[in-house]
Amino acid sequence: MEEQLIKVKEIVDRILSKDDFPDRIRPDYLRDAVRSYPCRGGKRLRPALTMWCCGLLGGDIEQAAYAASAVEVYHNWTLVHDDIIDNDDFRRGEPTTHTMLSAYVEKRLNFENSQNSPSKYGRDFAILTGDIQQGWAMNLLLKSVDKGVSSDVVLSLGRRLQEFVNRDLISGEALDVEFPYRNWDDLDESEIELMLHLKTGVLLQYCAETGAMIALESPDNENADVKKLGEFAAAAGVAFQFRDDWLGVFGDTATFGKPVCADISEGKPTVLLVSALKGLNDQDNARLLEFVGRPEFSDAEVEQIRSLIRKSGAESIVSGKTEALIAEAKSVLDSFEHNNYRDLLSEWLDYLVVRDV
Amino acid sequence: MEEQLIKVKEIVDRILSKDDFPDRIRPDYLRDAVRSYPCRGGKRLRPALTMWCCGLLGGDIEQAAYAASAVEVYHNWTLVHDDIIDNDDFRRGEPTTHTMLSAYVEKRLNFENSQNSPSKYGRDFAILTGDIQQGWAMNLLLKSVDKGVSSDVVLSLGRRLQEFVNRDLISGEALDVEFPYRNWDDLDESEIELMLHLKTGVLLQYCAETGAMIALESPDNENADVKKLGEFAAAAGVAFQFRDDWLGVFGDTATFGKPVCADISEGKPTVLLVSALKGLNDQDNARLLEFVGRPEFSDAEVEQIRSLIRKSGAESIVSGKTEALIAEAKSVLDSFEHNNYRDLLSEWLDYLVVRDV
Repeated sequence: MEEQLIKVKEIVDRILSKDDFPDRIRPDYLRDAVRSYPCRGGKRLRPALTMWCCGLLGGDIEQAAYAASAVEVYHNWTLVHDDIIDNDDFRRGEPTTHTMLSAYVEKRLNFENSQNSPSKYGRDFAILTGDIQQGWAMNLLLKSVDKGVSSDVVLSLGRRLQEFVNRDLISGEALDVEFPYRNWDDLDESEIELMLHLKTGVLLQYCAETGAMIALESPDNENADVKKLGEFAAAAGVAFQFRDDWLGVFGDTATFGKPVCADISEGKPTVLLVSALKGLNDQDNARLLEFVGRPEFSDAEVEQIRSLIRKSGAESIVSGKTEALIAEAKSVLDSFEHNNYRDLLSEWLDYLVVRDV
Repeated sequence: MEEQLIKVKEIVDRILSKDDFPDRIRPDYLRDAVRSYPCRGGKRLRPALTMWCCGLLGGDIEQAAYAASAVEVYHNWTLVHDDIIDNDDFRRGEPTTHTMLSAYVEKRLNFENSQNSPSKYGRDFAILTGDIQQGWAMNLLLKSVDKGVSSDVVLSLGRRLQEFVNRDLISGEALDVEFPYRNWDDLDESEIELMLHLKTGVLLQYCAETGAMIALESPDNENADVKKLGEFAAAAGVAFQFRDDWLGVFGDTATFGKPVCADISEGKPTVLLVSALKGLNDQDNARLLEFVGRPEFSDAEVEQIRSLIRKSGAESIVSGKTEALIAEAKSVLDSFEHNNYRDLLSEWLDYLVVRDV
């Protein structure tokens, strides 16, 4: 798979670095910011999903190249706005868009007599950066007609990018922001699962369906093969999120790359945590709640948290859900006739649910 | 015109209030925020431009109704993000999106143990509100196929909404944010004019071209009539902006609705101000500069500012530019064969350049 993933990367990198959409953006540092995340690399797992689903159904994967680049830019604009919302300073080892813009203008513009700071200016320009990237993504998708995809298919993909991805993905982001501020007693695991589906599953589902619709030259997203590949991708996305939550508590910090129990420090209600709180008796529930929101934990405390979550039954509930989703995704994939792309998608699934996306 | 404008308003209001795009947005207050500005009314001058340009060229204005609703929502999402950037509290006499959201969640969510405030939360959700509205606008445009507009025309309009409007309009917003922080000695009037064209002219140009392309059933935005109507609208937009700057200094506060010389208080380099500073001798230049950034002015000070700007020649330069643009727009319009829509567009122009948009 690695070799084929590099090919996808090369195709997408070439399209994104050569596309003239950003050229006319002013001022120049806004233009650079628009190019920054999409051209910063990343594993291009979403474009690969689109192109390989196209290949699985016998399509010409080159025809899906613009659509594959579009989903990558789409993913990136949501990251730019997410990073503002989360006050994050780094992304893929480099400064986030708003941090980068703020550092740039601090040196070059005059904030002496202003009520605003470079960091406010950086956030404002990062809002505009994501806004342009959303347009760029849509434009790349529409350019698929230049690759021979029919107007009807492109129009259908365009409508679905709005009616399905835009609305549902952003709703997922909004719920993710909201949940920590909710009364956790009223917060149901199924609501959190829905949020994970909206936030991560929906765009992956769209990536897969898009590749399938281009292969089948069909504007119909209700086609059985299109729907099946969408289900495969959505299940993979939610499984990835569950695995991510599990690794956050039970994973090895060095491999995982985030401080252990970071979600608990941040007071973020994951399915794991909410299930655990519901599964414990009052005394243990209170002990676990005491850890929520604390900035860091000793090794002994991490072990206490882990043991409480195991005791509650939540650890095996979440592991079970993850395995069920992976099995579902595998079984959907296996229902397709075998070809090289089916193997690639199978490896893609394994890669996704054991590593960071 | 008033009567016909009310008809446009009714058509657009009906589409926007009945469109199911926002229905599935979660949480409910994000959904309400997405509907808020577009359904708050306004004069619907952009939809009118689209529909009347369609009518001028003999098209069925009903076919342009979705596109007309799309440009209105497009305009509104830029306002939502602008209001965050400008820290504005009110829009059309009601709280701005971020202010409204912040007040709503303050009562309903728990911020007790959080590093974030309701006002940060309100701004974050207003970012997401505008993000969804950008998708909603695009989706409305694509729905034009349901009104019988051909796929090719709709695709062409969709690409142009990104390649032209998204990129250029947001570049215009960015330059507008940037200019106060620039070294004014390096800031040329032509740069400010370009910013006005990008920020206001481009969307109006798109509105007019869209109506024309739907009427002509043509995906070609280089068609002579399409281009002419685009020029008409762009000239009108820049004329409106010049008039707005002029009214900001020389207008009657009661009619204009903003404090007199607000741009000078805010340290905003308008063409009027920058031309004035260049046209004055060193002593008068220094006198005028002293007023820049001061929170308020006495009546006597306002008269001093006005007299300095008149003395510099800038007042007549800007008035002259405005009149020239209006004359250009009128002459373009008069080159079309007379019908009822030409009269409406002529009244639209008069309305735009004497009143607030």
